[in-house]
Amino acid sequence: MSNKKRKTYEEINDILYPKSIAVVGTNNVIGSVPYDIFENILHDRFKGILYPVSPSEKNVSSIKSYKYVVDIEDDVDMAILVFPSSVAHLAMEQIGKKGIKSMVIISAGFKEVGAKGLEKEKKIKEIADKYGISFIGPNCLGIINTDPKCHLNASFARAMPEEGNIAFISQSGALCTAVLDYADARHIGFSKFISFGNKADVDEIDLLYYLKDDPKTKVILMYLEEVTNGKALMEVAKKVIAETGKPILAIKSGKTAEGASAAASHTGSLAGSDEIIDAAFKQAGIIRCNNLEEMFDYAKAFAYQSLPKSKNIAIITNAGGPGVLATDRAINSGLSLGKFEEGTTKILKKSLPAAANIKNPVDVIGDARADRYNIAISAAIKDKNIDGINVILTPQSMTDIEAIAKDIVKVVGQSDKPIYTSFMGDTDVAAGIDILQKNNVPHYVLPENMVKSMAATFKFNKRLKEISEFEIKQFSDVDKEKATKILDEAIAKNKTYLPEEEAVKVLEAYNFPVLPNGLANSKEEAGKIADNIKYPVVMKIISSDIIHKFDIGGVILNIKNRNEAENAYEQILKNVKKVMPEAVIKGVFVQKMVGEGQEVILGLKKDNSFGSVIMFGLGGIFVEIFKDVDFKVAPISVKEVNDMIQSIRSYPILMGARGSEKRDIKSLKETIQRLSQLAIDCPQIKELDINPLIVRNEGKGCFVADTKIML
Amino acid sequence: MSNKKRKTYEEINDILYPKSIAVVGTNNVIGSVPYDIFENILHDRFKGILYPVSPSEKNVSSIKSYKYVVDIEDDVDMAILVFPSSVAHLAMEQIGKKGIKSMVIISAGFKEVGAKGLEKEKKIKEIADKYGISFIGPNCLGIINTDPKCHLNASFARAMPEEGNIAFISQSGALCTAVLDYADARHIGFSKFISFGNKADVDEIDLLYYLKDDPKTKVILMYLEEVTNGKALMEVAKKVIAETGKPILAIKSGKTAEGASAAASHTGSLAGSDEIIDAAFKQAGIIRCNNLEEMFDYAKAFAYQSLPKSKNIAIITNAGGPGVLATDRAINSGLSLGKFEEGTTKILKKSLPAAANIKNPVDVIGDARADRYNIAISAAIKDKNIDGINVILTPQSMTDIEAIAKDIVKVVGQSDKPIYTSFMGDTDVAAGIDILQKNNVPHYVLPENMVKSMAATFKFNKRLKEISEFEIKQFSDVDKEKATKILDEAIAKNKTYLPEEEAVKVLEAYNFPVLPNGLANSKEEAGKIADNIKYPVVMKIISSDIIHKFDIGGVILNIKNRNEAENAYEQILKNVKKVMPEAVIKGVFVQKMVGEGQEVILGLKKDNSFGSVIMFGLGGIFVEIFKDVDFKVAPISVKEVNDMIQSIRSYPILMGARGSEKRDIKSLKETIQRLSQLAIDCPQIKELDINPLIVRNEGKGCFVADTKIML
Repeated sequence: MSNKKRKTYEEINDILYPKSIAVVGTNNVIGSVPYDIFENILHDRFKGILYPVSPSEKNVSSIKSYKYVVDIEDDVDMAILVFPSSVAHLAMEQIGKKGIKSMVIISAGFKEVGAKGLEKEKKIKEIADKYGISFIGPNCLGIINTDPKCHLNASFARAMPEEGNIAFISQSGALCTAVLDYADARHIGFSKFISFGNKADVDEIDLLYYLKDDPKTKVILMYLEEVTNGKALMEVAKKVIAETGKPILAIKSGKTAEGASAAASHTGSLAGSDEIIDAAFKQAGIIRCNNLEEMFDYAKAFAYQSLPKSKNIAIITNAGGPGVLATDRAINSGLSLGKFEEGTTKILKKSLPAAANIKNPVDVIGDARADRYNIAISAAIKDKNIDGINVILTPQSMTDIEAIAKDIVKVVGQSDKPIYTSFMGDTDVAAGIDILQKNNVPHYVLPENMVKSMAATFKFNKRLKEISEFEIKQFSDVDKEKATKILDEAIAKNKTYLPEEEAVKVLEAYNFPVLPNGLANSKEEAGKIADNIKYPVVMKIISSDIIHKFDIGGVILNIKNRNEAENAYEQILKNVKKVMPEAVIKGVFVQKMVGEGQEVILGLKKDNSFGSVIMFGLGGIFVEIFKDVDFKVAPISVKEVNDMIQSIRSYPILMGARGSEKRDIKSLKETIQRLSQLAIDCPQIKELDINPLIVRNEGKGCFVADTKIML
Repeated sequence: MSNKKRKTYEEINDILYPKSIAVVGTNNVIGSVPYDIFENILHDRFKGILYPVSPSEKNVSSIKSYKYVVDIEDDVDMAILVFPSSVAHLAMEQIGKKGIKSMVIISAGFKEVGAKGLEKEKKIKEIADKYGISFIGPNCLGIINTDPKCHLNASFARAMPEEGNIAFISQSGALCTAVLDYADARHIGFSKFISFGNKADVDEIDLLYYLKDDPKTKVILMYLEEVTNGKALMEVAKKVIAETGKPILAIKSGKTAEGASAAASHTGSLAGSDEIIDAAFKQAGIIRCNNLEEMFDYAKAFAYQSLPKSKNIAIITNAGGPGVLATDRAINSGLSLGKFEEGTTKILKKSLPAAANIKNPVDVIGDARADRYNIAISAAIKDKNIDGINVILTPQSMTDIEAIAKDIVKVVGQSDKPIYTSFMGDTDVAAGIDILQKNNVPHYVLPENMVKSMAATFKFNKRLKEISEFEIKQFSDVDKEKATKILDEAIAKNKTYLPEEEAVKVLEAYNFPVLPNGLANSKEEAGKIADNIKYPVVMKIISSDIIHKFDIGGVILNIKNRNEAENAYEQILKNVKKVMPEAVIKGVFVQKMVGEGQEVILGLKKDNSFGSVIMFGLGGIFVEIFKDVDFKVAPISVKEVNDMIQSIRSYPILMGARGSEKRDIKSLKETIQRLSQLAIDCPQIKELDINPLIVRNEGKGCFVADTKIML
């Protein structure tokens, strides 16, 4: 996690809204990237002045060319670098000298090709820093700004997209061309379209801060291949959503962390990078999409229409089958089909043929024409029990597809209830779909995707309303200094593992419900400690050399009296000496044994990108066989800790399913929150397992029975 | 489950391949169904003779019309009925008298509109039976046969599809128009296209038997709204696949069984109709699709190319991002990326630019033209470690899309390795996609769907090879007569529930591992039985009035000697008398208690459509909280019983995970197979729970500890 200086709004804006541009390294080779970019800027009618810079050409297209950028007689706002990477640094020096502060570096051959390229990338970044230049790239497709004030297509895409309120930012350049083409055919417009490539200077986080304040952008789409600074990404995403309500839709290719070192803790082995991204995006409110189609399905819905106020939707169809499929999907996605008001039912009964289904989902029947659709849609819009409308159409020979599309366009915008459509088929319905798409009515080839998209907008709206609940509890009864000291001292001694009796001290400093304990160095001491903390007790060997103490007879449970305690002390030492005679023994740890309760596992894992991640699940088979755990990035809010506990499938067991007692959820919550605070305060902790935490019956608290800290 | 007489191949073939057709009830009203159908047959150039029958018209289009079908001077092979339902029976009488044996009934207004319609439907079915007529419909869109020998479009679809080797049969008429339109735009051709509507006579099972033997059909698609005879559907599907290797892809809208009565057994409450359909389709080899897009994604792959021989595929792309997304999906779908042979790597290294990724997935880089794609594809085809190739293309400004498409068309068919494509975008790649689709190269807008489709064809191929393993074990040491007698006697007495001591006898007759037991009617008798079967024993009240015997103190466990046994007898009677003084007591059931073992639940539920369904899962929380169960329709083959046990998530627990002992899987398998045989032999059983079945350590067997049978 670097602490890079964030770009200001103005710095990004200067790249996107230049009044003059020098294309440095262009030429007249039609079909080459250096020419295509120049040509695109020129012929897509950039509103400012364009200067070609080319070592060999007198003019590019029909515009007078300059040998060096410093030769340009006027001030230049922005430079686009298209020289090969081998000479990029030379050109950058000149750009810096010219006083240009904004750049897009298209050229490839940097970090993406290996160590040599990385060297070149570092060099250009150094030059940029020296001259105070902000730049996008290298190794990118370029940028597009559809704002008529600027109208800039500084990319080698095939065509400039329509103007719209969706911003798209992408780490992959090649994907951009497919996206532009896909969107163009659907009349999906963009506000800004930015390929940021290797993000050597400006990264996705800078761009998100900018787009947050960009008045032209309502919806933000993002394609990421790696999350370099997850923490900062979550922070900006939360701000975007809380301050502006703009949704962020993201695709992150989910490569499993290959060759991840076999982790020493449960949490380590369960928290794969993709699970963490899932958890983090969810916490930050970023909507993770599985593919481009899903992303644009949702984007259309967010960009064009208001959000559904409740989960109660109506489906109106002229074909039973698709209506059933859409209904199934709606319910599986968390929506429900609203029950019509009496008035609505009356209207439908009066106006639709007898064979029609006047209940929701409404079937206006195969031979329906525009009039029937009109009646049903208008009635549903007026119905107080309905907050979103989904129209399905299949092309029968009598269906007046275009008339129906035009009617839908008319009613959209007359109310704040979203209306989505699915005209099924292809060629026959094409003209109808075109009318819908040109008029910003979300359209979906499959009815299932239509209702799934409405579920996405509904859930986002629900989340917006809950933002006030995202408060984080801070405990004041913690001793950060003490915990830090223990951890730092261990690190100073190059320890990678904290022995239990010290790990327990860290938890005690944070007021975890640690059981009474003590470290014994003789059988008498063991007996005395045990007497003090009362029986039954458990005893465990403490040695930096021994991690799996159970397996070698280093733990004895359920010690009931002084005599047993003293014997146990000797037995443990004997067991250990037999198997690991050279282990350096620090003593035997004596701890109170807690009574019956549900075993729970709490964990913490430090992620390079997102920081500390907290894991929660029930112990034993639940975590090992069912992987029934939940992750959250610390710090965890009050709402999130509730979500966390309730999200696991075995939650009913904590609540007293199957005749068992209800457990002390309140104290469990507090313990998770304390762990979250410890994680934030002490980033030295690499991994931590509390396994088990024994959660007793309601009102009886929970207790740390065993803990492990890795540094 | 009706035992309807199946149609012969000839009966269906006569409907689909008539030499002459009378359209009964047609007219000249352009845009009406009666006219549109006539018009479609005529103008799509039906190869036989067409006769309009209309009470009012002298001619329809320019063809001489007949007042009644009996007026036609020639023999007529097939009649299409388009009269309103109110007069359909009159027309049918005439059709019967004319000696026509094949019909399609387009008219609506039958079963689908309620009780009155159902009456009409019964009437036409009676007339059909009287005259030996086979008919498709009523309430359907019609039929299409693209075979040039016949070339019949007897439907009111907008256009006739291209010829192809895919058959589509659908219960929904309205959906058909969307399907035709969708397929047409993708150059997907059909062999037969049949909307079978209310299936009053010919149903989907008849059609599947026909399509099995139809030489024009290679792939069968099916849309179902209700499965009336699941048993027969499974049977025909198995035959289609085993005898011909034709895949069946099906969409079944998955309405959850609303208002299903609160079931008395675990199995009853867990086996929802959709779970049963999932299980049954899987057993029969039917590939269940989630939506039309997925169905056609798979259909293209099956129809156009050979099946992948192994899971090892190659991905070739000019864009890293989509390559990663496709790789993720491939691995998640059960495919893997083959490791190239040395020779392949050499060729790629030599011929691709340095920045290219020559490992699988191959990245030929954004500026790749046809030559690079060619090199990579050819090398992958020749590689012995690769059995399927997936090509991704994004449209950069220099990409020669059509040339690449043409090259792919050339190599497809030169080997038996399937090649699928994903040209991402829309307008820019349209010409390329058109080349691919016209030449039967499967194309997908999303790379993820491409590899998912390859996973589907691979899995199907794998299953084809396993068909020989689907043998069913038959036990000869069972007494069907005895079991039947117990069940029938209970049914004769109007019992809906079999008391445990009788249920146990049914299981004993099938040689289930039932624990030694006896019924006591006095405390002395209880003591004697317990002495005989050896301690410890359990004792339970037996009364038809008491189902939940545990809750009222009707069960006492762990009885260790004669004295305890006699006391337990009296205590149970006392407990029961207190809560249910009027219960008629049949006695106290004494049963041996088994030692430690894993509790498993076995169940049986009779489904109206599919027959007996067997459930298996681990007891307690596994079934109640995790719903970790699997279903199979009886009879269960040897392979299926293995799949069943291994498919549950808690399977590792049976195998000795977490330090527990490995359980006796062999005896568990045998018990499930015996249950399957009992289910088939005794269809009187409506529901059955064995809960728990205690599975002891390997070699120690399993034991029925409690059982319940509902009639």
